[in-house]
Amino acid sequence: MAKADYPEAVKGLVGELKRLPGVGPRSAERIAIWLLQHPRADPLSLATALQEAKETVISCPVCGFFATVESCSLCDDPMRDDKVLCVVEQATDVLPLERSGALKGRYHCLGGKLSPLDRVSPEDLRIPALVKRIDEAPAEIEVILALGADVEGEATSNYLADLLRGKRCRITRIAQGLPAGGGLDHADELTLMRALEGRRAF
Amino acid sequence: MAKADYPEAVKGLVGELKRLPGVGPRSAERIAIWLLQHPRADPLSLATALQEAKETVISCPVCGFFATVESCSLCDDPMRDDKVLCVVEQATDVLPLERSGALKGRYHCLGGKLSPLDRVSPEDLRIPALVKRIDEAPAEIEVILALGADVEGEATSNYLADLLRGKRCRITRIAQGLPAGGGLDHADELTLMRALEGRRAF
Repeated sequence: MAKADYPEAVKGLVGELKRLPGVGPRSAERIAIWLLQHPRADPLSLATALQEAKETVISCPVCGFFATVESCSLCDDPMRDDKVLCVVEQATDVLPLERSGALKGRYHCLGGKLSPLDRVSPEDLRIPALVKRIDEAPAEIEVILALGADVEGEATSNYLADLLRGKRCRITRIAQGLPAGGGLDHADELTLMRALEGRRAF
Repeated sequence: MAKADYPEAVKGLVGELKRLPGVGPRSAERIAIWLLQHPRADPLSLATALQEAKETVISCPVCGFFATVESCSLCDDPMRDDKVLCVVEQATDVLPLERSGALKGRYHCLGGKLSPLDRVSPEDLRIPALVKRIDEAPAEIEVILALGADVEGEATSNYLADLLRGKRCRITRIAQGLPAGGGLDHADELTLMRALEGRRAF
């Protein structure tokens, strides 16, 4: 007697789903079965969405955000302030900053952060493109370093600050401190130290 | 200034991923970005797997398990015992039972369980097909009810036992009791009651 098993096509689908981030073997199976059985499921529509995204979405050669060949919603927007350039690690960091509503400038996505352990060195990041943008700016611009507050983010911020010093730009950096809604009892020492260092007149 | 946003194709993909069971808005975004950015990601291969599964996988008209038009790995297996028919709720219940290695018979997937609250009544389940299989069996068979131990599973088991009484079959039911590895301290009263009721000579 052969052990019963799913048809090859089901196993193939489970195998592909299992590769997605955050999807383990059991959820891959559950999702595959749902896609094949649930009346509201539409696997072909997901397949089409995948193909369309793969075919039309590129990384903007200027800012590194998601774009199409025709346009980049960030670089093409004439209403943005050309004198403010916000540097982020990942393209996915842009929308959270946009939602904050505190920024009306341009962005530059590095595509990562310096990390010797993961063998990410400056030449792996979009740093030359950043330098070019600053060099070619018609007037002095503010470069906001909006990188993470972890060790690699700090190292990348320091590296960029050193690299850009002397160029026609003013370098700033987003504040570190208590997260909104967070009490002092939940903050670690380092956060409190940074929050104290960054204190401002009230 | 327009708020920056992902290209339409990315939003479409996120929308499709968000519909999958267990995938929330944030994981949908993370998965979409991963699919588009990660060097090991292969969105077209996932798209193909979806299309292939959708095109080739059907529900076996006899047993209700996943099958192709050409064959059902359960029904076509000549080595299985025709005198044992195990009734389960879902097609997904078959492989866990198979992995237990305790069963060498045939299966019948009902496609659900009786649930008046969800408006699932007997005619929504594959019960006529089950009766037909029992009626057409050349000899008396054992019908093992392997349904869940929840209220709906119990109700469905009772309904089937009533329906099949008098037919040429012996009805049995899988045991309820302590789960393997579970201590008495973690078992609820009902489980312990069922475990006591089902006690056997040692």
